[in-house]
Amino acid sequence: MSILIVGTVAFDAIETPFGKTEKIIGGAATYIGLSSSFFSKNLKLVSVVGEDFPKSAINMLEKHNVCTKGLQIKKGEKTFFWSGRYHKDMNTRDTLETQLNVLENFDPIIPKEYQNSEYLMLGNLMPAVQKKVLSQMKKRPKLVVLDTMNFWMDHFLEDLKTSLTDVDVLTINDEEARQLSGEHSLVKAAKVILQMGPKYLIIKKGEHGALLFNHKNVFFTPALPLEDVLDPTGAGDSFAGGFIGYLEKTDDTSFENMKKAVVYASVMASFTVEEFGTKKLQEIKKQHISSRIKNITELVDSGLIL
Amino acid sequence: MSILIVGTVAFDAIETPFGKTEKIIGGAATYIGLSSSFFSKNLKLVSVVGEDFPKSAINMLEKHNVCTKGLQIKKGEKTFFWSGRYHKDMNTRDTLETQLNVLENFDPIIPKEYQNSEYLMLGNLMPAVQKKVLSQMKKRPKLVVLDTMNFWMDHFLEDLKTSLTDVDVLTINDEEARQLSGEHSLVKAAKVILQMGPKYLIIKKGEHGALLFNHKNVFFTPALPLEDVLDPTGAGDSFAGGFIGYLEKTDDTSFENMKKAVVYASVMASFTVEEFGTKKLQEIKKQHISSRIKNITELVDSGLIL
Repeated sequence: MSILIVGTVAFDAIETPFGKTEKIIGGAATYIGLSSSFFSKNLKLVSVVGEDFPKSAINMLEKHNVCTKGLQIKKGEKTFFWSGRYHKDMNTRDTLETQLNVLENFDPIIPKEYQNSEYLMLGNLMPAVQKKVLSQMKKRPKLVVLDTMNFWMDHFLEDLKTSLTDVDVLTINDEEARQLSGEHSLVKAAKVILQMGPKYLIIKKGEHGALLFNHKNVFFTPALPLEDVLDPTGAGDSFAGGFIGYLEKTDDTSFENMKKAVVYASVMASFTVEEFGTKKLQEIKKQHISSRIKNITELVDSGLIL
Repeated sequence: MSILIVGTVAFDAIETPFGKTEKIIGGAATYIGLSSSFFSKNLKLVSVVGEDFPKSAINMLEKHNVCTKGLQIKKGEKTFFWSGRYHKDMNTRDTLETQLNVLENFDPIIPKEYQNSEYLMLGNLMPAVQKKVLSQMKKRPKLVVLDTMNFWMDHFLEDLKTSLTDVDVLTINDEEARQLSGEHSLVKAAKVILQMGPKYLIIKKGEHGALLFNHKNVFFTPALPLEDVLDPTGAGDSFAGGFIGYLEKTDDTSFENMKKAVVYASVMASFTVEEFGTKKLQEIKKQHISSRIKNITELVDSGLIL
């Protein structure tokens, strides 16, 4: 089994009420890769960076079992850069600066030995780019998970809708679910979105947890209540990495197993937000994950017996 | 066992994105009474209304096992009236009109046969009034639950803090927990608030569920994801009624049993918001409650075994 991860590898500069960073390593695929590395031993990355991207960061990914053969390094060009400032509630943010750089003309090329990956994680990217990845797979992966955001709904809605007809799991946040469906109730929103193609929908609600839907069922996991949230950047990507990582490790894509995957996903996100950038994901060990799985399971165990 | 409920009995006029009501029956004690009546057979109400309050509404409460001997009816005066408009997100609202009327000089008198109640629910009222109730109890109740709101924190903080030194359970929402503690993190807020006196703290997060804290433990219950939320008025009071009702019925005030009570509380609130006013609470049967207890338990059951 293996997971092909496609998404940004980037520089971020982040400001929150609790601190501020210089340019640090970020990007959806970076968080997804680190997070899923705690579950999967066979991770393949497709992305693009500029000549300015440090070799040490690539080594760091390799050290976490992420094969970077599919990481294009563009001579004479610069890495995608995003800078943002989070508001006091940490749920909303302003983008201060976006330099697309290498991302402007990103043409994802899937190396031959990646084309048979059974699990495909399409990180947040332009829908047309996500589609181009899927079309290069030699056979349809067992599971395709697609993450996206409101920006693509605003500007590339038709492309996004086309992509949605061919994915298994869509992950978006609550506001995006409302925007995409036109429904305020998340239960109604899920029904509308599941009509668009995905067999499963995950609605991420940040500190308020996440909902997993299919046509018949719904499951909810809380986020762990934390003392300190320093930086929400990458939480959704760490969530996605934990989700697909657990599914690949167990190689079971049933709804019953996805419930467990969503709990692991929530735990992985809980680590990410406790430090700026990828710091915490680089520090934790497997036993920290087990310990939080226990915490989150106990957190919702009322003792009521059906 | 019995529950003494003190709080408003009122008229409301409510506007939400989904509809609008004329003057209907509302008030914290009304919702608490109806909600707890599904658990307790011995409910005692202390409140005040004007001459304009309909006899039919009093009969309705009596029909739900709520003894109204402690309901003062002020000749020539008018019942407390509140009118509000909810915003699109249903989490925030504007008060359009408040007529205190009989509430302005409310002097709660606890009938002799109420003074031994083992469970005391102090619904949202001026802190000094809540305190006056507690001082009339012949012996300290087994459990005192106090609900309050930001208005009292803004204008009567010292009175509120005095009351808090003498209650077992405080119920407030997330914004109020942040205001009262000065901490943004709810985990930190809970620590601060539990230092103020209450042994247990419930933080209500509306559609995002509720957290139960004591000095050592934390428990979380989600709110049931609903297709239609018509009117959030009374959700918090229905929650409180379900909580104290379940505790009285089982006569067990341990943290372990409070976890179950919080799930029942969440279920009771889920009914209230599906219709305007108290309509749904007047319609449901016990089997509807059992059915939703099953739904909410399954909703968070990941199948992960510790």
